[in-house]
Amino acid sequence: MAFARIVRGNLKRAGGAIGSFRDGKEETFRGVLADSFSFSSFESVPTRSDFFSRLPSSKLNYASNWSRGIRTTPHDQFPVAERALAESDSEYESDTYPGLEPTKPGEKPRVVVLGTGWAACQFMKGLDMNMYDIVCISPRNHMVFTPLLPSTCVGTLEFRSVAEPVSRIQPALSATPNSYFYLASCTGMDTAKHEVYCETFGNGGLPQEPYRFKVAYDKLVIAAGAEPLTFGVKGVKEHAYFLREVNHAQEIRKKLLLNLMLSENPGISEEERKRLLHCVVIGGGPTGVEFSGELSDFIMKDVHERFPHVKDHIQVTLIEANEILSSFDVGLRQYATNHLTRSGVHLKRGVVKEVHAKKIVLNDGTDVPYGLLVWSTGVGPSEFIKSLDLPKSPGGRIGVDEWLRVPSVEDVFAMGDCAGFLEQTGRPVLPALAQVAEREGKFLEELFRSIGKQNGGKAFCSKDIPLGDPFVYKHLGSMASVGGYKALVDLRQSKDAKGISHAGFVSWLVWRSAYLTRVVSWRNRFYVAVNWATTLVFGRDNSRIG
Amino acid sequence: MAFARIVRGNLKRAGGAIGSFRDGKEETFRGVLADSFSFSSFESVPTRSDFFSRLPSSKLNYASNWSRGIRTTPHDQFPVAERALAESDSEYESDTYPGLEPTKPGEKPRVVVLGTGWAACQFMKGLDMNMYDIVCISPRNHMVFTPLLPSTCVGTLEFRSVAEPVSRIQPALSATPNSYFYLASCTGMDTAKHEVYCETFGNGGLPQEPYRFKVAYDKLVIAAGAEPLTFGVKGVKEHAYFLREVNHAQEIRKKLLLNLMLSENPGISEEERKRLLHCVVIGGGPTGVEFSGELSDFIMKDVHERFPHVKDHIQVTLIEANEILSSFDVGLRQYATNHLTRSGVHLKRGVVKEVHAKKIVLNDGTDVPYGLLVWSTGVGPSEFIKSLDLPKSPGGRIGVDEWLRVPSVEDVFAMGDCAGFLEQTGRPVLPALAQVAEREGKFLEELFRSIGKQNGGKAFCSKDIPLGDPFVYKHLGSMASVGGYKALVDLRQSKDAKGISHAGFVSWLVWRSAYLTRVVSWRNRFYVAVNWATTLVFGRDNSRIG
Repeated sequence: MAFARIVRGNLKRAGGAIGSFRDGKEETFRGVLADSFSFSSFESVPTRSDFFSRLPSSKLNYASNWSRGIRTTPHDQFPVAERALAESDSEYESDTYPGLEPTKPGEKPRVVVLGTGWAACQFMKGLDMNMYDIVCISPRNHMVFTPLLPSTCVGTLEFRSVAEPVSRIQPALSATPNSYFYLASCTGMDTAKHEVYCETFGNGGLPQEPYRFKVAYDKLVIAAGAEPLTFGVKGVKEHAYFLREVNHAQEIRKKLLLNLMLSENPGISEEERKRLLHCVVIGGGPTGVEFSGELSDFIMKDVHERFPHVKDHIQVTLIEANEILSSFDVGLRQYATNHLTRSGVHLKRGVVKEVHAKKIVLNDGTDVPYGLLVWSTGVGPSEFIKSLDLPKSPGGRIGVDEWLRVPSVEDVFAMGDCAGFLEQTGRPVLPALAQVAEREGKFLEELFRSIGKQNGGKAFCSKDIPLGDPFVYKHLGSMASVGGYKALVDLRQSKDAKGISHAGFVSWLVWRSAYLTRVVSWRNRFYVAVNWATTLVFGRDNSRIG
Repeated sequence: MAFARIVRGNLKRAGGAIGSFRDGKEETFRGVLADSFSFSSFESVPTRSDFFSRLPSSKLNYASNWSRGIRTTPHDQFPVAERALAESDSEYESDTYPGLEPTKPGEKPRVVVLGTGWAACQFMKGLDMNMYDIVCISPRNHMVFTPLLPSTCVGTLEFRSVAEPVSRIQPALSATPNSYFYLASCTGMDTAKHEVYCETFGNGGLPQEPYRFKVAYDKLVIAAGAEPLTFGVKGVKEHAYFLREVNHAQEIRKKLLLNLMLSENPGISEEERKRLLHCVVIGGGPTGVEFSGELSDFIMKDVHERFPHVKDHIQVTLIEANEILSSFDVGLRQYATNHLTRSGVHLKRGVVKEVHAKKIVLNDGTDVPYGLLVWSTGVGPSEFIKSLDLPKSPGGRIGVDEWLRVPSVEDVFAMGDCAGFLEQTGRPVLPALAQVAEREGKFLEELFRSIGKQNGGKAFCSKDIPLGDPFVYKHLGSMASVGGYKALVDLRQSKDAKGISHAGFVSWLVWRSAYLTRVVSWRNRFYVAVNWATTLVFGRDNSRIG
């Protein structure tokens, strides 16, 4: 039971080669070192010209009210006059958009959910559809079971086994007349009008491209997630792979197999072959460690069997600025270090200065040639979140109170990696973990049930409704696999607390069975089990598709 | 037994909206209507400037001897002097390439295989690796189980279930010291020097890009396949999807799901929604019919369940110039027509004139707006095959004799879709079917065993070796599924012969079990069965990845 529960704590993780994982505040790293207010007010806010250069000029009207950065601002200081002015700017264009008009009396209240991650899906899964209609807006139509993503890069698991269509998580999304899933990105909102503005994908041949529309909401739930942190290191976005989405894993697998095959070509020099087969992972958090472990499993079994000509040239290096798995118990950390080293993973201390097409340069001047570079140093607020004219938490997330409400605006809630407690709540910003996101989703779903029962579902109707107990987060512990049928399980509530911790084969069995029970649908549970079994029996598949 | 065997006949198929399937000679369509010699000599040979414009200038040296089109030329007329001249042109550059030098005395003879399709894989699977080393060169590292490809477009089967890594088909390819698989395209060859020239993929960061190398062979087996026929119709390559590779199926699936989701966007007009959801299939051969059947299954079950908002707007149209499944028995054809019509597939006679981004124009002037266009009108010789300075069969394939040897050059064999009997053999060019390719692969493997036993494996050593019986092809019949648990099975040897034919649920059971037994590996056999079972229990997966 405890095992089944702690897995939630571990479901989405962030490591950090540069801003390493510190009790779950990894994305506040720069804010902690610098003045956190000044960071979020100035540094993380795009300059007006930067920001506008990314937007089509036609969007300037209503984009103009996003970048007037009021961050970590208590809601009683919120400049209502300025917002009103900005709204009148934006009125002209957004009014011409097609879209969903406000719900009429007699209709169920409409909850608009931005995102399809852990928080959003947990919320939608449980929401009482007799009480509400949902409109979910996200650029992907599935949830990713992130903790198993590293396994898909080398073929231990198949991609679809870790992707759960949102229409399976909440069937009412497609089945009921007024609920919808829109494959689109939210680009802005008008909280006074209770509207969000969206843009669909550009390659569908729609009448206008990008096709824009608006959706009016009674309640808005922002669970749009975060973006990988690059700390401004030059070349990361151009050359490194992230590991957050299924297509990231697909790209990594393609690149890995391509390099293996290219290195077999006749006439490739020894040095070039070594470079092609050098897999570098930046960030020693759980994702980086698990990916390194999977890679070493893949090398020891599959590369030795299927690519024997080049097996002696392949090498995995894990680069971390501080200690790997710094949130884990010191004994477990030591175990992981020893195990990875024995499995052939080269652990290196270092801070990345620059990334080039074929090498990275470390702060101490060392060149590290690579063939595959995976960047996994935690996450921070996305450009979209930064652009929103809402109060911000330390670190630049959307600021929320203890009930996950965004103060100063009505009927707006935020949760998951994009939300953090406001400074004045006196609570720390929670780590970017699935455990947190899932619990927040559950909390909000119950809060919405309570609001609905008190007839507060419609816009501007829940202001004076008693909300009950606030959200309280209790960390249940962490897990990480390190390859070779070994894993770590750490059941302490925090880094300094006492509790059970264990590493080895038994922990690995716990890790696998715990995750298996957490996979969202029976279909994928079945597929994960089948994938694991076939990998054991037949080895990993190495077709390079696409 | 008969059922398990006839499935081979059906494994890779080509339909034809324009040049429809005529007893397996669909790719000779234009050659048959026009003067077949003039077609292959002039029309299908790229002009010098056309051809060179596709090549990097540095390749002109040895490309220059490709386009001196000697096609369908008996080998005794082969201009040796001209070839010698061309070789001296090419010498300078290709000599600087790195690569595999000719085998030394005492080493096993090296068979170079171009391609990883049905013919190549059947050949390599059976080849005696104690007798030969293999070097396989192909731009993909897996074989595609083509008859099940249409099922992957809608999620009935997963992509990896129909892809078989070549290293599993012939493990010696990676395991023995002198056998290799190279992920590369062959771009030319020098048959006098016994060398092929290759180019790797461009995105691996190799020292030179594209990276070129050469491989010397003792025997060369060309099984490089064919390309979809577009009949010069404008816009096909830009706007239509083909269905020949796993990534084609992936793209079709992504587009289909994208269109379904886009059509749900608020404000999309009725007309636009209908266009987005209009799936048009060109070509009523088995591939086109099976894809239409899969689409209608997908619509009737999954779209109705998961996309009820738009279910009434989706429509499948199959356009064919003549009759659908023209190689099948008339009763079966009638059955297929009735069944498809009942399943909601609109069958339309027509010839495509032009393809635009959002509509196709038929010869009679009708506009057909579409959201997804799949082009499946059979295959013809690829640019690479056309460019080779080898004798050609009617229709422009590489001309072979009864032992699949290419006359006029020594130690070169060709088979599968890229090869056809020379006119002077008096035999017809065989249809582009997996049944044919597989049987040719098997024949050549046995021929190589016999050559090896007589010590003829090395270059220039098999000229006077008795080869035994020539290759004889016997057609075993055809099968096609039409959706809704129905299929056609036609056991006649030709269109006019007598024999068993059956359509319905029993045929569908035969179709499924026959294919299941033909899937190459146990791993994929297991996965195909698991995919079918989960589709039945849980429905199709509709995550849109990437």
